[in-house]
Amino acid sequence: MPSASFNSLVSRLSPPPVPSVFAWARAYDGSRGPLIDLSQAVPGYPPHPDLLAWLGEAASSRGFAGYGPIEGETDLRKVYAEDAAEIYGAAIEAQNIHITSGCNQAFMAVAMAIAGPGDKVALTEPFYFNQETTLAMMDIERVLVPLDPTKGFVPDLDAVRAALAKGIKAIALVSPNNPTGAIYPASLLREIFEACRQAGVWLILDETYRDFLPEGDKPHELLSIPGWEDNLILLYSFSKSFCIPGHRLGAVTAGPKAVAEIAKVMDNLQICAPRAPQAAVARAIPALRDWRNGNRKEILKRADTLKSVMAKLPDWKMDSLGAYFAFIRHPFEGKPSALVAEKLAREAGVVCIPGAYFGEAQEGYLRFAFANADSGTIEALTDRLSGFRLD
Amino acid sequence: MPSASFNSLVSRLSPPPVPSVFAWARAYDGSRGPLIDLSQAVPGYPPHPDLLAWLGEAASSRGFAGYGPIEGETDLRKVYAEDAAEIYGAAIEAQNIHITSGCNQAFMAVAMAIAGPGDKVALTEPFYFNQETTLAMMDIERVLVPLDPTKGFVPDLDAVRAALAKGIKAIALVSPNNPTGAIYPASLLREIFEACRQAGVWLILDETYRDFLPEGDKPHELLSIPGWEDNLILLYSFSKSFCIPGHRLGAVTAGPKAVAEIAKVMDNLQICAPRAPQAAVARAIPALRDWRNGNRKEILKRADTLKSVMAKLPDWKMDSLGAYFAFIRHPFEGKPSALVAEKLAREAGVVCIPGAYFGEAQEGYLRFAFANADSGTIEALTDRLSGFRLD
Repeated sequence: MPSASFNSLVSRLSPPPVPSVFAWARAYDGSRGPLIDLSQAVPGYPPHPDLLAWLGEAASSRGFAGYGPIEGETDLRKVYAEDAAEIYGAAIEAQNIHITSGCNQAFMAVAMAIAGPGDKVALTEPFYFNQETTLAMMDIERVLVPLDPTKGFVPDLDAVRAALAKGIKAIALVSPNNPTGAIYPASLLREIFEACRQAGVWLILDETYRDFLPEGDKPHELLSIPGWEDNLILLYSFSKSFCIPGHRLGAVTAGPKAVAEIAKVMDNLQICAPRAPQAAVARAIPALRDWRNGNRKEILKRADTLKSVMAKLPDWKMDSLGAYFAFIRHPFEGKPSALVAEKLAREAGVVCIPGAYFGEAQEGYLRFAFANADSGTIEALTDRLSGFRLD
Repeated sequence: MPSASFNSLVSRLSPPPVPSVFAWARAYDGSRGPLIDLSQAVPGYPPHPDLLAWLGEAASSRGFAGYGPIEGETDLRKVYAEDAAEIYGAAIEAQNIHITSGCNQAFMAVAMAIAGPGDKVALTEPFYFNQETTLAMMDIERVLVPLDPTKGFVPDLDAVRAALAKGIKAIALVSPNNPTGAIYPASLLREIFEACRQAGVWLILDETYRDFLPEGDKPHELLSIPGWEDNLILLYSFSKSFCIPGHRLGAVTAGPKAVAEIAKVMDNLQICAPRAPQAAVARAIPALRDWRNGNRKEILKRADTLKSVMAKLPDWKMDSLGAYFAFIRHPFEGKPSALVAEKLAREAGVVCIPGAYFGEAQEGYLRFAFANADSGTIEALTDRLSGFRLD
């Protein structure tokens, strides 16, 4: 009998990367002190107690047990639009918002709304691995825009133009970047947007880590450009700034036409995002402004701590440090990054993501999600890394 | 400037069907009495108060705010596996379960794990519309197996064999069926499974409405067949039997190899299903057994009520009545089902789904989700329908 087979686009993918890293961490014997988990981006502090209370209140209510609108709860769309309008200084309304179950889903729904099998979508390299595998499993051809470490991993406009010349339907950028942390200048984003517009290409801008930009820094002015809706889609996650990744909540900001296309995908994909967290976050956005600002400051402080730690470790080069992540060149040139990361987890109790997970050319790197750890924990890295040998 | 374009596989799809039906309902002026909503399948009774309390407890806990395992919470996988083991009388374990954010997502993740662009997957017609559009947007070619109303909309084995001969990778069946309510006999499912096995094809069996089968009716014996894992994947939804569609929770039962492939898709699609509802449902499965059985009886009673109502309406033919739905032939032969459904909603305050949404050949039908309404409400249909004229 012939055996039933799987989709080769999926079966050829490696197993999900994060659990493999956790397996290394479980092999650590604790001899160097408590595990330092700098792997999956999870702020080390808990959600605000009021948010937890609102989550409980909404989840236990009959009102949110039934189906909700595909595009998201009206309240959350309105409140998040008001928040975005203030952050970007632009006229964003509820009709511009589509709520999703996390930002991975936002990326997948947007990618599917734009590109089909055989189409091309550009990513920067290093890339966020789930964006790369999402395209791969949908048979969307990835076009890579290499980022130069000596230029702070910020995209080069000519490299973007070269990708546009290849007939891509969209380019996806992540700023602040995952994995490098790099923050793309507003002026560069504007130039890239204009190049996309000239070419009739979508710019998908993933701003999952936006809330960790220094206070008062406007991410960009793109939403003030008349007609932005025809070429621009923004992605956002409530997971990081509200510390609730387990509740799965993200958002898309786009023109009404794009929202309507994304809604068709979302209806098939899961009808609507879970409703109770939407209700709770709608209350939290205006109410927890100060708390989020406090966290922003805390994470900027952690970045400073990491900077001083890395200054004491001349063999480890911090090629990029940004809003949540640092991209660190390890001292073992020519050795696979997974080997380094595995040994670092097992023997030094420091868990991070190997560079190769973000692109074949990234073997020399490790991603540190430094914002996961408090300053005291980050300081412990000095000892853990300085004594670390590969053999 | 060229304009950025959408994916034609998505843009050619109609807007999501359910909201369009709700729009007709909003146009009803109330003159015939309260709206009778038989459209989207939503049990008319609330979730059990204990479940609401557990949902609130889990959602307000710090423990479920972080990321969880991709395949689902260990507790829920274990408890649901035990439940399935009892229902099917088979050795199902936690490793056979993958939790998803609802059953639409389960279908999409499974379809993607099995079939890629250009592959063929068979559906019965009438089909559940979201399964059809899910395949369409992923460029998976649908092969339709027509169902015969005179045979109770139960698949004909020869028609299934004809589909298998077309080189399909999978056939998706829904039993109890959406939209017809038809319950497929266990012996037929066995024959179809064996035909799939001979052909090296997956049988995807969506059992969203399984808990509304008459008490003690085992759905089928497929999970007792040695090697079932190589050709069978079951889908289930917690939305209907626990009345919590807003919390988005479903499950896949499959072999460990299939679970691993589905996990790759799910990681990209949303990392993990929302965690708090998983924790609550893990408590509810053993604790609310009697309550679920009570609901099963209540819905069987509603089916009896509908039967007696339809007997008084000779112009309306109930061609199929099953575990949750009835598929009703309306008296206006040759008229579009959407026209009939729209007028029925606007003027008689009876909301249902037009047959054409389930396949082009279904213009003569309307789907009644009778289980949404209590017996008293169902009885009111006699008056609403008997007085209804199209012009």
